[in-house]
Amino acid sequence: MISMSIVGWDIGGVHTKAALVRYEADAVPDVRVVTRPFEVWRAKDRLPDLLRDVLAELTDRPPQAMALTMTAELSDVFRTKREGVRFVLDSVGIAFPKTPVYVLSLTGEWVPRAEAYDRPLDFAANNWLATALYVAEVYRNALVLDVGSTTTDVVPVVDGRVAALGRTDLDRLLHGELVYTGVLRTPLAAVVRSVPLRGRFCPVSSEYFAVTGDVYLVLGRIRPEDYTCPTPDGRPPTVEFARERLARLVCADIEQLTPAEIDAIADYIYERQLQQVETAVRKVRSRLGEPADLPVLPLGTGAFLAVEVARRMGLRLLEPPMAWGSAGGRVAPCVAAASLLTNWLMADGHEP
Amino acid sequence: MISMSIVGWDIGGVHTKAALVRYEADAVPDVRVVTRPFEVWRAKDRLPDLLRDVLAELTDRPPQAMALTMTAELSDVFRTKREGVRFVLDSVGIAFPKTPVYVLSLTGEWVPRAEAYDRPLDFAANNWLATALYVAEVYRNALVLDVGSTTTDVVPVVDGRVAALGRTDLDRLLHGELVYTGVLRTPLAAVVRSVPLRGRFCPVSSEYFAVTGDVYLVLGRIRPEDYTCPTPDGRPPTVEFARERLARLVCADIEQLTPAEIDAIADYIYERQLQQVETAVRKVRSRLGEPADLPVLPLGTGAFLAVEVARRMGLRLLEPPMAWGSAGGRVAPCVAAASLLTNWLMADGHEP
Repeated sequence: MISMSIVGWDIGGVHTKAALVRYEADAVPDVRVVTRPFEVWRAKDRLPDLLRDVLAELTDRPPQAMALTMTAELSDVFRTKREGVRFVLDSVGIAFPKTPVYVLSLTGEWVPRAEAYDRPLDFAANNWLATALYVAEVYRNALVLDVGSTTTDVVPVVDGRVAALGRTDLDRLLHGELVYTGVLRTPLAAVVRSVPLRGRFCPVSSEYFAVTGDVYLVLGRIRPEDYTCPTPDGRPPTVEFARERLARLVCADIEQLTPAEIDAIADYIYERQLQQVETAVRKVRSRLGEPADLPVLPLGTGAFLAVEVARRMGLRLLEPPMAWGSAGGRVAPCVAAASLLTNWLMADGHEP
Repeated sequence: MISMSIVGWDIGGVHTKAALVRYEADAVPDVRVVTRPFEVWRAKDRLPDLLRDVLAELTDRPPQAMALTMTAELSDVFRTKREGVRFVLDSVGIAFPKTPVYVLSLTGEWVPRAEAYDRPLDFAANNWLATALYVAEVYRNALVLDVGSTTTDVVPVVDGRVAALGRTDLDRLLHGELVYTGVLRTPLAAVVRSVPLRGRFCPVSSEYFAVTGDVYLVLGRIRPEDYTCPTPDGRPPTVEFARERLARLVCADIEQLTPAEIDAIADYIYERQLQQVETAVRKVRSRLGEPADLPVLPLGTGAFLAVEVARRMGLRLLEPPMAWGSAGGRVAPCVAAASLLTNWLMADGHEP
C-alpha cells in the first residue's frame, strides 16, 4: 500500500469530529482524532472556519481526500434535511475548495461532493453507516453499540453485511436501531419520569436543568474534560456543580438534598438509561435468526454503558478494530469513513 | 369598602404576570392583567426595568400596595432558592422603592418585603398558595386545577381550608400537587416516549425540537398570541412552523411526513398529557374522605385541559371567582394575591 492521508468527518449538530488516518506502506495506520463542541444552530456560518481549525489541529499538510458523514442536517436551524445537508456540503466546499471530498450515501456508495448536492436526502444522517460498513469488513458478526453524547446506534452486522433495516433516522427509530439517548446531552426527563427519594418516587421537572453528563460526572464514569457540551446552567462541569444541577430535577437545591441523596438519584438514572439501551438491543436481536452468535462491539463516549448492557445480557464483547487505535472507538464514524474511503480509492483506482 | 388599588405579582422564571385590582366602594372590583415573557436566566438584571414596564402598562398611578408571589427562584441562574428569592425581593425593591410590598409566606401570612429577606425559603414558589387561599374564601370545597405554561397545580380545598399536604416544590411533586407539565413550554419527550406513526409506535427524539405549545397550535386549542414563550427553533408560532417543529420529534421533516400524520401525533400527545394531569388528580383525590364532593376549578392558560379531565372523570366544574373577571383565571395567583392582600389590609387595619 502506498502512502496516503485521509480525513474522515462526522459533522453533528452539537459536535464536529474528525479523524486523520495516515497509511505508510504496510504499517498499522496512524490515527489522530479531534472532537470540537460546535452548536450549529448558534452560528452556522462559522462552520467553515471551524472545519479549517479542526484540520489545522490534525495536520499541517492537506490530506489527499476527505470522507464526509453528518447528522447536523437535523438541527432546527434548517427547515428541512434537504436544506441542512446542502448547507454542510457547502460549508465543507468553502473550507476546503481544493481537497476532493466524498460523501457516503445511505446505499453505501462514495459520491463526490458536487454530485451529492443534487440528491441531498441520500446523505442525511449517514454517520452510523460508515461505522457499520467498516465493522462489517473486520468482523463477520457483530452488534455495533455506539453510545454517543445524545444518541445510541444499535446496528447488526450479520455474515459480513450490514443488517440494518432502517436507513433514515425515522426508520431507524422505528426499528430500534437509533435510540435517542446518550451519555452527555440527554435531558433527564427523557430518561426518567420519577426518581426514588426518601422512601417514595418523586416525579421530575421537565425543565432543562440537568443532563446525563451530570449523572456520569457525579458517578465518576466521565471526567470533566469528557463533558464536551455546554452545561445546562453554564457553570463548569464539576461534581459539585453537577450535584446542584441534579438537585433541580426534583425542584430542590443543595440546601434541601444531601450529596448522598443526589448521588442515589444519579445512580437510578444510570440504571434506567442502561435499560433504555438494553431494550433496544433486545428489540434488534429479536428479529435475527441466531442472535446468540452476535457479540457486542461497544463504541462511543458512552462505551462503558454498552459494555454493561452486554455484561448483563451475557453477550460476548468485541474490541474496536485495531486499526482505529486507542481513540478511534470514540469517534468511530470518522475513522471508519476515512478507512472506507481509503480502501475504495485504492481498490477502484480512483484518483483522489 | 373604601377605594383601594393593589397589584398582585407572580414572577416566574419564564413569565412575569401581574394583576391590578381596583376596589371602589361596593362595586365588583375592576381587574386588569398583564403577562410578559421574561426569561430570568437570560438577563436577570433587567428584571426591575421589566417590573416597572409592566406596572406602567397596568396603571399610571402607583398602587397602594403590592402582593408578591414567585417561582423564579428555581431558575438555574441562581445556585440556591435562597439566592433566588432574595434576588426577586431585591428586584421588586429596586423597581418600586416607595410602594409597600408584602410577600405571601408558605404558612399563609403576609410579610413585609424587608422581613421576608431574612427567611427567604418561606417564600419560595408561593404562587399556588395565593390561588388556593383565595379559592378557599369563595368555595367551601374545590379541587384547584391550574394548568399553566410549564406546570400544573392540583390543590384541594376542603371545608373552606387549603388541604394541600406539600408546601415546598419537592413535597408538592411527591404528593402529586405539582405536576411538571404545561400547555406551552413542556418538551414533548417529557410527555411521550413514543408516538403512533404508520401502524407502529415510533420512539421520540429527546432534543428540544418542539413543545406542547406546538401541539396546541396545530390542534387549534391556542392561538398564536397565546404562545407567549420563545419557540424552540426561533421561528414564529404559526401552525405551519409548529408542524415543522413537531416533525422533528421523530427526526423527520415536512418532506417526510404529511400534515395529517403530524396532526395525529399532536392529538396523541394531547391525549397523553390529559392522562398525566388526570393521574395527578386521581392521586390527590385518593387521599380525601369523600372525593366525590370535590368539584374542579379549572384555571390557567391550559384550563381547557383541566375541563376535559373533569369531564372524563365525571366531576362537576366550578366557575372562576366572579371578582377575577374574564382574564383573572389565566393569571390566578396574581389576582388572588391582590385580593387576599386587600382583605388582609382592610380586616386588620394595616396601613399599606
